[in-house]
Amino acid sequence: MGQCNISTSINVELMQHSSLEVCAHAIRTCWQSFDKSDDGGEKDKDLINRVGNKFKHASTLEHLTYTFYIAGVSRALLQELARHRMASPSVKSTRYTLKELREEDTFTEGMSMVELKEKYTVPSEVYEDKHMQRAAKYLVWSGELGVDFSSVVALENIRLMLLDGIANDRAKYCLPESYKTELTWTINARSLQNFISLRSSKSALWEIRDLANTLYETLPTDHKYLFEDCIAKEN
Amino acid sequence: MGQCNISTSINVELMQHSSLEVCAHAIRTCWQSFDKSDDGGEKDKDLINRVGNKFKHASTLEHLTYTFYIAGVSRALLQELARHRMASPSVKSTRYTLKELREEDTFTEGMSMVELKEKYTVPSEVYEDKHMQRAAKYLVWSGELGVDFSSVVALENIRLMLLDGIANDRAKYCLPESYKTELTWTINARSLQNFISLRSSKSALWEIRDLANTLYETLPTDHKYLFEDCIAKEN
Amino acid sequence: MGQCNISTSINVELMQHSSLEVCAHAIRTCWQSFDKSDDGGEKDKDLINRVGNKFKHASTLEHLTYTFYIAGVSRALLQELARHRMASPSVKSTRYTLKELREEDTFTEGMSMVELKEKYTVPSEVYEDKHMQRAAKYLVWSGELGVDFSSVVALENIRLMLLDGIANDRAKYCLPESYKTELTWTINARSLQNFISLRSSKSALWEIRDLANTLYETLPTDHKYLFEDCIAKEN
Amino acid sequence: MGQCNISTSINVELMQHSSLEVCAHAIRTCWQSFDKSDDGGEKDKDLINRVGNKFKHASTLEHLTYTFYIAGVSRALLQELARHRMASPSVKSTRYTLKELREEDTFTEGMSMVELKEKYTVPSEVYEDKHMQRAAKYLVWSGELGVDFSSVVALENIRLMLLDGIANDRAKYCLPESYKTELTWTINARSLQNFISLRSSKSALWEIRDLANTLYETLPTDHKYLFEDCIAKEN
Repeated sequence: MGQCNISTSINVELMQHSSLEVCAHAIRTCWQSFDKSDDGGEKDKDLINRVGNKFKHASTLEHLTYTFYIAGVSRALLQELARHRMASPSVKSTRYTLKELREEDTFTEGMSMVELKEKYTVPSEVYEDKHMQRAAKYLVWSGELGVDFSSVVALENIRLMLLDGIANDRAKYCLPESYKTELTWTINARSLQNFISLRSSKSALWEIRDLANTLYETLPTDHKYLFEDCIAKEN
Repeated sequence: MGQCNISTSINVELMQHSSLEVCAHAIRTCWQSFDKSDDGGEKDKDLINRVGNKFKHASTLEHLTYTFYIAGVSRALLQELARHRMASPSVKSTRYTLKELREEDTFTEGMSMVELKEKYTVPSEVYEDKHMQRAAKYLVWSGELGVDFSSVVALENIRLMLLDGIANDRAKYCLPESYKTELTWTINARSLQNFISLRSSKSALWEIRDLANTLYETLPTDHKYLFEDCIAKEN
Repeated sequence: MGQCNISTSINVELMQHSSLEVCAHAIRTCWQSFDKSDDGGEKDKDLINRVGNKFKHASTLEHLTYTFYIAGVSRALLQELARHRMASPSVKSTRYTLKELREEDTFTEGMSMVELKEKYTVPSEVYEDKHMQRAAKYLVWSGELGVDFSSVVALENIRLMLLDGIANDRAKYCLPESYKTELTWTINARSLQNFISLRSSKSALWEIRDLANTLYETLPTDHKYLFEDCIAKEN
Repeated sequence: MGQCNISTSINVELMQHSSLEVCAHAIRTCWQSFDKSDDGGEKDKDLINRVGNKFKHASTLEHLTYTFYIAGVSRALLQELARHRMASPSVKSTRYTLKELREEDTFTEGMSMVELKEKYTVPSEVYEDKHMQRAAKYLVWSGELGVDFSSVVALENIRLMLLDGIANDRAKYCLPESYKTELTWTINARSLQNFISLRSSKSALWEIRDLANTLYETLPTDHKYLFEDCIAKEN
């Protein structure tokens, strides 16, 4: 049908993080070498990298925790993110929030999938359309027109169902996995290294790869060196 | 539009489990009271309940592990199941397996949602229809006709996309969450108690409540007593 | 032989902690109810208690992490603390630090256990003695004179061994479990609730009970309400 | 003072383990490739190694759990073993079992450390002595005579204290870390790989290195290939 290169809509904010100084202090506990600290400076940073990464005393990296707010990701991505079990996710609940669709205007003006396909002859115009832009608040675009039309038709169906009084717990069953979600996610540096290593790989799902890279970019500048070797080389 | 009481399609098989005897032995390690064992009999069972449950020395229950094969559940349910992080899931991957839809015949004969709705005047006949029965291999029915028609239309769309050569990694974005999945799931008794407690509750999602109860039913008969108090009273 | 009521030597410092505001934000993610927040005030505090404790959505409490520096505890206590596996300990290593004893003066002036016992006729004077006070830098007193003399004799033996050039990895095998250790300990609120519940109990080891209470006292004032019900009633 | 090469007293028994077949089945869940299984044969074994190790889909190895009974290890070793938090230990409790020393005959016949040292002129004879052999039921020998005499003197002191009615919870504070313990330990293959990698290293404590190697030797023959690359090369 047609494809369009569109960028993902991932939005990551770092809400809180612990300090390198505390991590260095934790490591210095083992040797009681507190007097060698430079308060989170180059000596401490070298120490964390040496002990946590090179010496594989990886539990010391668990003192570094990050809380991210992640928005604009699909529930398809959430399925994969949730498999990283050394992390704490609090996720926008479809059970509690789906009714928000009732406040929206129509996403398709009643057009079927077939009609939508006929309407657009130039793929690049699809995502500029006002209905599609309205739907983009709720859907992650795949860039495959067929896929995205199917999602928007499903979205409109659900909107109508909710107006009809169907309960969230039933209506959610026909949600497309492109449906957007948001989460607060707390993870420690050890587990985040594992996440970035596995999910920045060329063989990872395109959207989660983008998330892995975005998480890396969102890290405090002076923390990034701990994750540099985790970012897949091919990127 | 219409509702239909239909039972869920959950299928659980217990593939392997550890023995009460080993768990009792683990507990007896603390007191070195091995000579009081009756080889997994009533005395050992009482001991496990007393120490693991009443005395809250819950880590002793971690020696009991169960591996279940769970089929016929939706990816909506999977979203919730994956939040139980003290467990090991290996899940049917849509990325690897979605192409299976290409082997299937049409699920709708080209009918749109509107046409499907018009076709059926008696709700109970819907799920007897041969197209719907074919789709039931892939979809968990919610019992809400609108929801289920929407799912089946999406399923047909994906089938056509895959025939058109669209990649799994894009096509999967318009999968409805009712799409069926299967998983091998290893969990220890402590974490399973937590799962059953939270998920057999009246406030849990209808499908996962059914899973919680089915897991309980699938346990070895002589293990059930450890989980009895976890099953929500109102059930 | 004699007993003496002495207080434990536990010293806990809270090095870093996350904010209630972030935890409340995480919970509000589920409902997307951010506009109801009062920035970590009473409404947010009530929400955390209601969802994390009463509704048993305990994973939301995992966004709250605390890093403590714990000093003045025995390695006997460490054996129990390490069983709490949802926490990250970085511990003073006897393998790396035992040589510190070589810098010390004699702890016993060569007296044997028997001679030490004869020296003191009034129990309360024992811990005032300059040798015992020097040893108190390294040992947690049990208050049982026999136990503490035995520890101090062992301490002196190790000091002499290290002066003789015996390696830490061998010398540490005759360390008494009263030997003091220190650790940096990162734990989330959910796991800390479990720790305080189990370890403030009357049936817990006296020293770890004291730790559980001290940890509670060291929490930020506005966080304590989350742990109040965990502190054992009999205390 | 003198050293003696003595072997450690570690005794490991594999009490239960899951089958390679179940692990292979879990992996085949992802691809739904059950028909390619050879029921735990060479094809399945290759698959586990390829997916779990080479492809780093390590969670699939968590379906393999092992329960070991470990005896003859010191509480010094236990301090290190307990840091492996992805495992479930149930340990012989000194709080509950220390009174067993009251049943024993004297370990030293009242000799002090100095007298013990004078008694033996030939190191190799030390461990043949009947008192030392009696003590070996309770102590892991380091091979350093000074260390081991110190341990045996402490052991005798505790025996006398317990006869005097001192409570386990106080007496345990002067236990030497060489004191033997036993535990039932359940661990999955992923975490066991991590344990063997870190603890078979030349830089690990001598006793836990021996444990890592013994655990490897105790594995079912057909499971060993999954751990071969974890055993430190220098061994």
